Amino acid sequence: MSTRDVAPLALASWTSIIDDWLATESRGHDLKLAGNPDLIPLGLGLPAPELFPVEALQAAASRLLVGRARALQYGPVPGALAEHVVSLMAARGVRCSPQQVVLTSGAQQAMSLLAQLLVEPGQPVVMEEVCFPGLRWAVQPRGARVVTVPVDLERGMDLDALEALLTQGARPAFVYAMGAGHNPTGVSLGAEARQRLVELARRFRTPVLEDDAYGFLQYEHAQPAIRALDEDWVLYVGSFSKILAPGLRVGWLVVPPALATRLSYMKSSAHLETATFAQHLVSEYLDHEDIRAHIERICASYRHRRNTMLAAMDEHFPPGLRYTRPTSGMFVWIELPAGPTRIDTYDLLDRALREHQVMFFPGHSSAATPERPSGHCMRLCFSNASAEQIAEGVKRLGTLLRALPG
Amino acid sequence: MSTRDVAPLALASWTSIIDDWLATESRGHDLKLAGNPDLIPLGLGLPAPELFPVEALQAAASRLLVGRARALQYGPVPGALAEHVVSLMAARGVRCSPQQVVLTSGAQQAMSLLAQLLVEPGQPVVMEEVCFPGLRWAVQPRGARVVTVPVDLERGMDLDALEALLTQGARPAFVYAMGAGHNPTGVSLGAEARQRLVELARRFRTPVLEDDAYGFLQYEHAQPAIRALDEDWVLYVGSFSKILAPGLRVGWLVVPPALATRLSYMKSSAHLETATFAQHLVSEYLDHEDIRAHIERICASYRHRRNTMLAAMDEHFPPGLRYTRPTSGMFVWIELPAGPTRIDTYDLLDRALREHQVMFFPGHSSAATPERPSGHCMRLCFSNASAEQIAEGVKRLGTLLRALPG
Repeated sequence: MSTRDVAPLALASWTSIIDDWLATESRGHDLKLAGNPDLIPLGLGLPAPELFPVEALQAAASRLLVGRARALQYGPVPGALAEHVVSLMAARGVRCSPQQVVLTSGAQQAMSLLAQLLVEPGQPVVMEEVCFPGLRWAVQPRGARVVTVPVDLERGMDLDALEALLTQGARPAFVYAMGAGHNPTGVSLGAEARQRLVELARRFRTPVLEDDAYGFLQYEHAQPAIRALDEDWVLYVGSFSKILAPGLRVGWLVVPPALATRLSYMKSSAHLETATFAQHLVSEYLDHEDIRAHIERICASYRHRRNTMLAAMDEHFPPGLRYTRPTSGMFVWIELPAGPTRIDTYDLLDRALREHQVMFFPGHSSAATPERPSGHCMRLCFSNASAEQIAEGVKRLGTLLRALPG
Repeated sequence: MSTRDVAPLALASWTSIIDDWLATESRGHDLKLAGNPDLIPLGLGLPAPELFPVEALQAAASRLLVGRARALQYGPVPGALAEHVVSLMAARGVRCSPQQVVLTSGAQQAMSLLAQLLVEPGQPVVMEEVCFPGLRWAVQPRGARVVTVPVDLERGMDLDALEALLTQGARPAFVYAMGAGHNPTGVSLGAEARQRLVELARRFRTPVLEDDAYGFLQYEHAQPAIRALDEDWVLYVGSFSKILAPGLRVGWLVVPPALATRLSYMKSSAHLETATFAQHLVSEYLDHEDIRAHIERICASYRHRRNTMLAAMDEHFPPGLRYTRPTSGMFVWIELPAGPTRIDTYDLLDRALREHQVMFFPGHSSAATPERPSGHCMRLCFSNASAEQIAEGVKRLGTLLRALPG
């Protein structure tokens, strides 16, 4: 049997996704290079491994496994974990009940489940012109039509454009929004923008899928989640990946109770693939540790790294270059000139790796559609390198950027 | 937002699945009752928790976490795990390379991925009249049309019926087959039947999806996997759930290399939800432990429980009752008379729980289609109770069955 024999229609929905990957090989490439100890890693969006609470997780694993096999058996995940999520949500200004919480295998499964529940084939899904590619991967197999709105490097999603779309009669399955520490731009929505987004959702009866993966990483002017403003139309996606450890693959949804029941059935029936052991492990960790204190330690460290990165960029980057100043998350986004001197950041990455041993993330795969390519942009991540590495890496990139024509 | 607002088409594919669950509540019900310590648990298909290698897994978790954060980070799963799977496959008579192995989050994700890759909406999928419900959950969201063939309580899948279907021009996405320890019937395919199935697959260019979740649990007349006979048309699904621990949610596929590449991209791009930590844990366990010796210990224990169950059934069940004599797996299947004295095994379960404190699994949810209901059948599981509990539980069921009219 070869791929020739595979039903062509079934493959079609996956082809563009797979081609994305085969063409750019961004993730495989990146992860392989991330193993080179001499490289300054400003590329992949990895949390700082030295901040993982390994001793506390080891203690939790020991407690879980000594004399008890429950965490290794089939069965429902511990109810205590949903209660812990409810407490954690209070830190984002969100009041909810355990009945509104659906535990998932990472934020990505949360988005896949929502896509399966909400998207009809051919229906539009609204996202920003540059967007986390995982959202496309979640909605494309459902046959969604991607509709974009611009993203402003200071204010975030262009809500005038969104309102115009909705007024013209677009009936999207949902609007995807990352209110805090947007990936890849690092921009956060201000209070007025969040309020306006929620009003649009209510007026046009259109759900907002709030991806709050970076929401707990706040460095100044901390803002609550969009979900804090509306519990009917905002479907919240959260994750332990950035505040505990991504390898555990534990995320959650906060949704209206009626949807929670359906999503829980979908998850258990269609997947049976909840990371049971990892969920027990996270729950056991949360029973004994103060995760909010742990998050504060992470934020203190990332705040210092962000400050170092922005100061180095201000010092070493060519004047006039546009980049964001994130108050949340892990990323800074840089727009190189898009005119006749347009630089392809894949070509630039080759030189950065070869001549300067610095990794960054080229903007190509962040483009939501081919019509608005972002190959003249680049994303820098400040969470996965030390302040010293960041200062040195940005300096080297400055040398490279200053030597470019135009 | 309420479920009223949810796109009706998107929900449609899930409705029958969710209704299955809401109507019978079989799993929730069962899992809740499974917590009652006085109940004799012959219902849910759970492996014996006292056979989980908790000390070895605890040691593996400690080694993984001490001073290393790798297992907690985003990133590719250890290559060693695919090598371990290759060695394990040799025990099933299968030769394969690591390039043919795709690691998954349990066998259920493996089947979901194959369904997404292979099934066109409206295309038939062939399964037996009584069948593991997880297969329906995997194919129904793809819009598959379920086509059934009978299953014989001694010989397994009716291959004459399958050949007739294929000869009449059915072009199924795949034929689902559980060659060893079939769930729910416990029947295994003999050597001739496996050979004939593979010949049909080749002749009609129709893949066989071999679900070998129970294949390592062999008690007599051990048979190799169907995949041992053909590497082009048999897509193999394996799992650590029955031979290590289900809570880890680690399974695998063995497929032709061209499909492996596609499935790997689908998995990483659409899910990012590989149970990374659990896969590191399994790999670390396998680096240090002899899993084939561990499987032999499990088989010795289950063989004894199966012998105890069959001996007790022979002694206490009413004469003339039809049931299977499994050589593999975890289940015995019982057909009560289907005629005018037909007994509904849900009603029977009520009495078994109330009057005898014995749990079994009613046959209803094993029916692949409503046209061939199996509500007069029941499944007994011998892996999740001690031999003493099994002897006592079967005796009590015998009392109940002998008191039935007809």
